[in-house]
Amino acid sequence: MKQSKPVILVVNDDGITAPGIKALMDAMATIGRVVVVAPDSPQSGMGHAITIGKPLRLDEVAIYEGIEMYRCSGTPVDCVKLAVTKIFKGQKPDLCVSGINHGLNNSINVLYSGTMSAAVEGAIESIPSIGFSLDDYNLDANFKHCIKFVKEIALQVLAHGLPANTLLNVNFPAIADIKGIKICRQANAKWAEEFDQRMDPYKRPYYWLTGVFQNNDGGEDTDVWALEHGYASVVPTQFDMTAHHAIPVLNGWKFNL
Amino acid sequence: MKQSKPVILVVNDDGITAPGIKALMDAMATIGRVVVVAPDSPQSGMGHAITIGKPLRLDEVAIYEGIEMYRCSGTPVDCVKLAVTKIFKGQKPDLCVSGINHGLNNSINVLYSGTMSAAVEGAIESIPSIGFSLDDYNLDANFKHCIKFVKEIALQVLAHGLPANTLLNVNFPAIADIKGIKICRQANAKWAEEFDQRMDPYKRPYYWLTGVFQNNDGGEDTDVWALEHGYASVVPTQFDMTAHHAIPVLNGWKFNL
Repeated sequence: MKQSKPVILVVNDDGITAPGIKALMDAMATIGRVVVVAPDSPQSGMGHAITIGKPLRLDEVAIYEGIEMYRCSGTPVDCVKLAVTKIFKGQKPDLCVSGINHGLNNSINVLYSGTMSAAVEGAIESIPSIGFSLDDYNLDANFKHCIKFVKEIALQVLAHGLPANTLLNVNFPAIADIKGIKICRQANAKWAEEFDQRMDPYKRPYYWLTGVFQNNDGGEDTDVWALEHGYASVVPTQFDMTAHHAIPVLNGWKFNL
Repeated sequence: MKQSKPVILVVNDDGITAPGIKALMDAMATIGRVVVVAPDSPQSGMGHAITIGKPLRLDEVAIYEGIEMYRCSGTPVDCVKLAVTKIFKGQKPDLCVSGINHGLNNSINVLYSGTMSAAVEGAIESIPSIGFSLDDYNLDANFKHCIKFVKEIALQVLAHGLPANTLLNVNFPAIADIKGIKICRQANAKWAEEFDQRMDPYKRPYYWLTGVFQNNDGGEDTDVWALEHGYASVVPTQFDMTAHHAIPVLNGWKFNL
């Protein structure tokens, strides 16, 4: 770890006033110098979206005393891009932490989650990055029990760094006595959609996306298993989506061109 | 391949009236029965975003004669979810194709691209899925030269299927004489952001996201290399983002809890 205080970028997808980011910035302020860049409104489910067709706003705000904070009109990924370019101006922070998300981002949720996509963008920028999420969707979620884990994982990442082109996806069960940390792989799961169809006052249908999380993976080395058994799950995550094992399969195909 | 005509779901992110989806649906109509479900407006850069806080519209439209088409108010991923649940009602299509995107989706763009995210969602739904993109951002892009590749790759996927939990990311150079197909890995590249800062009439700054694609990968087995050398690139892609090689590294850490 560097001798000077580490500089820590804090982002999220629930928006700059969410209790989860307050819990995270308070925890990080005990470790280093915190800079918060977060969306001005909730951005759950925004995945790795970026803002292309319209301009972005980035304004410094004074919400919590003594913390440097910026609110951004864009997506969580936009926040990281703007932070790197316009706030740090190429002097990369030592750590990028995202969350603490109100709700789990285990398994396949890594793709849908703005929280995780912000951390992925941090990793693309070669910043050691971690996404944190708690299994409680409520605005009054209790982050108290996971804070010692958040701090310890951040300290370990600052001390060791992370393997090239990887980041961490950390999820916590919403219990007081978290048993410990399990290093896991992403469970093979999906959402089984159940669109709630309704009629508007003009007799035209519309749909609300709802769904049930469906785990298709019995492995005891998965994040789903760890969380169900009272552990914090830590999944090392990468942004190379190549299915390397499928390359020889495809090379065996004969294309008739 | 099944004896009956295959059913092919066609989606995109440039919107239902984009020339690229017209080229793709025309090509697929020579192979099977086509059902188009596409966004009602351009959704470039939406990544794997889904619509959570507001309801969705899905309306059948008659834009091109003889083709079953639906326009959706949501993201490309919403289109696939609605198609599977409300149109196919669990009777999955034999193939899901997305595109043809106006602009490349090679390398790291797989994360930002709505085109690729729609194909990823198809794969999550266990539908053999392919994303197609052409290196031409213009609305009047010429898709003629890549159509025989599009058809042949679709036919091969229908004939062979794809390895479990994988899909294909196919990109074409915008040239008349594409040399052939290269099976590739995703190049390690990123966008170097350059936000264009302007002042509004009220003297408040705003930012346009721009950037330069920066390839950090000299490998001749990458999609960037193949495209630069006149080939169509085919990257087998997966939605498991676990960095499996990093699990033993993290298991070596001692957490002080």
